[in-house]
Amino acid sequence: MEAAMAAKPIIKVAALCGSLRKGSYNRGLIRSAIEISKETTNGLQIEYVEVSALPMINTDLEVDGKYPPVVEEFRQKILQADSVFFASPEYNYSVSPVLKNAIDWASRPPNVWAGKAAAVVSAGGGFGGGRAQHHLRQIGVFLDLHFINKPELAIPAFQPPAKFDQHGNLTDPQVREKLMQVLVSLYNFSLRLGCRNKMDQYP
Amino acid sequence: MEAAMAAKPIIKVAALCGSLRKGSYNRGLIRSAIEISKETTNGLQIEYVEVSALPMINTDLEVDGKYPPVVEEFRQKILQADSVFFASPEYNYSVSPVLKNAIDWASRPPNVWAGKAAAVVSAGGGFGGGRAQHHLRQIGVFLDLHFINKPELAIPAFQPPAKFDQHGNLTDPQVREKLMQVLVSLYNFSLRLGCRNKMDQYP
Amino acid sequence: MEAAMAAKPIIKVAALCGSLRKGSYNRGLIRSAIEISKETTNGLQIEYVEVSALPMINTDLEVDGKYPPVVEEFRQKILQADSVFFASPEYNYSVSPVLKNAIDWASRPPNVWAGKAAAVVSAGGGFGGGRAQHHLRQIGVFLDLHFINKPELAIPAFQPPAKFDQHGNLTDPQVREKLMQVLVSLYNFSLRLGCRNKMDQYP
Amino acid sequence: MEAAMAAKPIIKVAALCGSLRKGSYNRGLIRSAIEISKETTNGLQIEYVEVSALPMINTDLEVDGKYPPVVEEFRQKILQADSVFFASPEYNYSVSPVLKNAIDWASRPPNVWAGKAAAVVSAGGGFGGGRAQHHLRQIGVFLDLHFINKPELAIPAFQPPAKFDQHGNLTDPQVREKLMQVLVSLYNFSLRLGCRNKMDQYP
Repeated sequence: MEAAMAAKPIIKVAALCGSLRKGSYNRGLIRSAIEISKETTNGLQIEYVEVSALPMINTDLEVDGKYPPVVEEFRQKILQADSVFFASPEYNYSVSPVLKNAIDWASRPPNVWAGKAAAVVSAGGGFGGGRAQHHLRQIGVFLDLHFINKPELAIPAFQPPAKFDQHGNLTDPQVREKLMQVLVSLYNFSLRLGCRNKMDQYP
Repeated sequence: MEAAMAAKPIIKVAALCGSLRKGSYNRGLIRSAIEISKETTNGLQIEYVEVSALPMINTDLEVDGKYPPVVEEFRQKILQADSVFFASPEYNYSVSPVLKNAIDWASRPPNVWAGKAAAVVSAGGGFGGGRAQHHLRQIGVFLDLHFINKPELAIPAFQPPAKFDQHGNLTDPQVREKLMQVLVSLYNFSLRLGCRNKMDQYP
Repeated sequence: MEAAMAAKPIIKVAALCGSLRKGSYNRGLIRSAIEISKETTNGLQIEYVEVSALPMINTDLEVDGKYPPVVEEFRQKILQADSVFFASPEYNYSVSPVLKNAIDWASRPPNVWAGKAAAVVSAGGGFGGGRAQHHLRQIGVFLDLHFINKPELAIPAFQPPAKFDQHGNLTDPQVREKLMQVLVSLYNFSLRLGCRNKMDQYP
Repeated sequence: MEAAMAAKPIIKVAALCGSLRKGSYNRGLIRSAIEISKETTNGLQIEYVEVSALPMINTDLEVDGKYPPVVEEFRQKILQADSVFFASPEYNYSVSPVLKNAIDWASRPPNVWAGKAAAVVSAGGGFGGGRAQHHLRQIGVFLDLHFINKPELAIPAFQPPAKFDQHGNLTDPQVREKLMQVLVSLYNFSLRLGCRNKMDQYP
């Protein structure tokens, strides 16, 4: 048993949030995902990657084939990840500009998203962000991201009962359970696709 | 004849560009649209609305129900327009964050897009921005924008022969003709929908 | 009052259902829409247009520029309508083949959808058919249909409490109220667009 | 060399065409794909699966949990395949009803598409079927199909020079080369995902 766990390959996940709001539910989902991954030692190493400092994309900012330092730093973090976890609010039936901006910078040559596994979750009104998820999946075709299909998690955050507290922390156990299933699916799909930059294993 | 022209109602159009690049082809399309509208005196008054100074959307920036001054100024310009003309590059199969950011700010309550007529054109690689146009149309459902259906103009800008000069100015007469047809369609659809804040007429 | 009603223009609506199931909730929505239009005399004349007899589309069936009689009969009904009301189930995140088949036949030259106003409602699992509605709206761009934006009605039919009886009849008063709002919106938008083949008025 | 080839795993591919037209370009693409797979012995075994005999979907036709024989026969062919190759015409900016109908029947419980790799190609006007491809990809999320991202092949069939002969046979060598690349990508992605019902190997 111990031995089996020990051999479980690590999948490094870059987690991006599409909201800049302090109390964002979607950033809360990332905090929960990190907690879950630590508690279950299921092989996922999730790192929250900040995107708020990126300038609005403008390829005129690329000089001599170099990106602004803050962009380059961000691109390196994506490059080093095996997989990607998006927590995407839905603004006007699509993804937020914050998230799209990060996506677009990292897609500049060489596209550092290419070939990675990905999952998207969302919390919001209406369909809980479900429409934004479909836009993100279409974007992913060009990025060459491979999204898991199941389970899908779009949380209708404004329907009672409350699923998040005032700080944006996920409090609903059923949603937390589904979030765990998303993570397990992402982990398994990453392995299935062979999405590992390094073959690091648990000690 | 003169009299008929004189009675032609004015449709005020806000024109937005989704690129910050200096040599943007899409901004070039707006310059051409403005030229065309002046030459033909067809009743369209197109104003280019700058969006580059808007902060990345974050509703935490809304204090006491007020928007940052630069946002409020932008919202007023949209509010005063009868119709909207989008020149939208396509980044990774969707709209650019620059454009989405402007859209999202103006959608905050009260949504100043509501009920207006709209048109979108694009220049880019692949399908010339056609996928981004469909995303924008879906966004428009929530915004309550009424897009013209025909004609559609998505310009495959990187296929020979060159359609723009090095400064992003449209040089292709056939594309210019199609652009004119888009403008005529937007004008007629705006009238058909009764999209007029004011009943101003030509002097 | 009477006089005002008397002058209300009639909008003829063709109503299509995307399901062949006997107990279809979506056909139930059309029955309710017809009832509502009769009770409120709001100027809508809704006719249910059967699409089950249409052959699977195959342009090889078009001989000497003529369509099979059953197709031609269907096309005439669409042609005579001012507006269209779609009750669209969602199959696998898109529209049903039954509905798409009817749409495709009527789009053959001359496209008899062109320029009409339209509305779509749906009942189903998940988002209640919301994804299919977005596909239908994209299809509508090519058809040159002008969909109302608001209100949107996608009914999560399998969430309690029951909203339909075993025969597919709509029983939920709140959904019925929303359906009425959709019809009022379609009526007003049809007038706004000038979608009237004839200027018939109430007697 | 021989030995290496001998060990190459077989991937069984079900190929579906969304057109019933005799001279369909899309069926021509399937014929070419089968030829390519035979000539290159790259491990793909492509079988054309006829869908024209399927009744229009209506779950009332399911009796005692059984499907009509022609439907059941079709479902078995999908079930036995490791991967799926769609040749999808675009009708009115979406997939054809013929293809959607086949998709929907095979998605009925148990969903026989689940977990397979997939690729889509298209030939048509406008963007060559590119919009239909995106609809199909969204459908694939619910089906649990894993589409390859690259390369994409959407053939603008009506732009000169002619790419197909009058019988719908692909004649353009460049398109044929791209088609081969799609097949190689599908093969590799199928292996990467472990999409093999059987571990059959070349003799």
